[in-house]
Amino acid sequence: MGKLLVVGTVAFDAIETPFGKTDKILGGAATFISLAAALYKTKTGIVSVVGDDFPEAYTELLQQKGIDTSGIEVVPGGKTFFWSGRYHNDLNRRDTLATELNVLADFNPVVPEGFRNPDVLMLGNLHPEIQMDVIRQMRTRPKLTVLDTMNYWMDHTWDSLMDVIREIDVITINDEEARQMSGQYSLVKAAGMISAMGPDYVVIKKGENGALLFHEDRIFFAPALPLEEVFDPTGAGDTFAGGFAGYLAESGNLSFENMKNAVIHGSNLASFSVERFGTERLLEVQPGELSARLQQFRELTQFDIEVE
Amino acid sequence: MGKLLVVGTVAFDAIETPFGKTDKILGGAATFISLAAALYKTKTGIVSVVGDDFPEAYTELLQQKGIDTSGIEVVPGGKTFFWSGRYHNDLNRRDTLATELNVLADFNPVVPEGFRNPDVLMLGNLHPEIQMDVIRQMRTRPKLTVLDTMNYWMDHTWDSLMDVIREIDVITINDEEARQMSGQYSLVKAAGMISAMGPDYVVIKKGENGALLFHEDRIFFAPALPLEEVFDPTGAGDTFAGGFAGYLAESGNLSFENMKNAVIHGSNLASFSVERFGTERLLEVQPGELSARLQQFRELTQFDIEVE
Repeated sequence: MGKLLVVGTVAFDAIETPFGKTDKILGGAATFISLAAALYKTKTGIVSVVGDDFPEAYTELLQQKGIDTSGIEVVPGGKTFFWSGRYHNDLNRRDTLATELNVLADFNPVVPEGFRNPDVLMLGNLHPEIQMDVIRQMRTRPKLTVLDTMNYWMDHTWDSLMDVIREIDVITINDEEARQMSGQYSLVKAAGMISAMGPDYVVIKKGENGALLFHEDRIFFAPALPLEEVFDPTGAGDTFAGGFAGYLAESGNLSFENMKNAVIHGSNLASFSVERFGTERLLEVQPGELSARLQQFRELTQFDIEVE
Repeated sequence: MGKLLVVGTVAFDAIETPFGKTDKILGGAATFISLAAALYKTKTGIVSVVGDDFPEAYTELLQQKGIDTSGIEVVPGGKTFFWSGRYHNDLNRRDTLATELNVLADFNPVVPEGFRNPDVLMLGNLHPEIQMDVIRQMRTRPKLTVLDTMNYWMDHTWDSLMDVIREIDVITINDEEARQMSGQYSLVKAAGMISAMGPDYVVIKKGENGALLFHEDRIFFAPALPLEEVFDPTGAGDTFAGGFAGYLAESGNLSFENMKNAVIHGSNLASFSVERFGTERLLEVQPGELSARLQQFRELTQFDIEVE
């Protein structure tokens, strides 16, 4: 039973896909990450910030999943971070319609006393100075620190990003961002250059084309599960990170062999997340479904060639 | 020791990539397919057509690899099919600079007597009526007939394509073409619809994003091997098909489990093909290299999760 601290946004999302649209629904990186991680035997806590427009019911929902929400600051009179996006027909591209930072603009994270010694620290996509601020609040170095980031921080806060990246063990990043960050088109070369910036492990997410795990000269690949229909990709990357971090926090085994399993667990959870809008599907996943789909991953990827 | 008949183009290619350009070099679907297949214990023969501008040295090269070239018609005074293309910086897109059909325009395939009873028939990308003509020349139904095609035939010869597709066992096709052929964006749905047109097995090639094998409700996925550098993708799809068909012709085992292995073998050979211009790398592959890289595929994909 490991302890997992998740730092990231808790937000309202409004989503349009070819299949329909939502009003403001529960979203945010820390939400997806912690809901995914909560499916494992971990003590998961969130550090984030919302306005007092954030429904009590959403907070209770997280608590019912066993997530410690004491680190979610509620700003009186403040408005919760809001993101709105519209997906193209192929669901691989989206236009951002609105990004209202609101209370996130002045976020000073405060890690609750009981979460200053997590086994795993998961730094969701946020300003790198906020990520660094959280690292500084740790009483002991976590066994594993995982960081997610995006191109915006590369464009605007490169030096801060480099500072925080030196402190972490695993970076999760998508393929385009890995190319931007490294200046290399080849993902093998990109991973090598990014690893030289700090993290021992580099996870490159390729959406429907799976995810690659790099460590020294070793590479592991987890496909995305081929689905009849992808309904809404929002939060899939964060769900992946949550499954990855949650599984590792539960197992406590940080060997490369077990990291492989963590990547498969992350892909497994992401395959549920995309089946409905926002967190809907993730909230309903049953343990038996997790096992059944892990079995599908096995059938999808495992073969038995005799190598002479 | 199975017998494999390969039908397809034998051609001159002129290729430009960000890394350099070639003059007219040896190319064509049947060339890549048969050079890949020749790495297996098969008796491989080509049915194709060239002009008398086709160098004797190229024909001898194929023969030295153990390929039967007696089905390659040489048209006196004719010019060999010529293709020229320029790849974009990302190597995922290319512009065709020239397509000169030449002797291919009037190609009437004649299968040599000794190859009218192959174990595996591999129909490379060609006019579907030519593919059908070859099927009609079979004395016995091959254990497995594999067909490759492209969007051009969907646009221009749909009915003929449907006729030939009813006669085959395996179709190999890229993701965009699978979507065009089925009208479905989801590759799972696309494979189902294409299978309903005839083939029991659908292989969807996704280039650097690997390949999917569909059969009834079963799916297998083979990634492309992540490489430091892709030098020239020309012929990678055909090399994949050649490894797939060659391995199956050698083993004679057409179970789904062994088809998985065939897809891995195809991906393995394609990973060599893209390392140099045209057929250069494929011509040099040593058996020991094949095994070593199969081992890399295993490390890349195999994991050991206990599913409860």
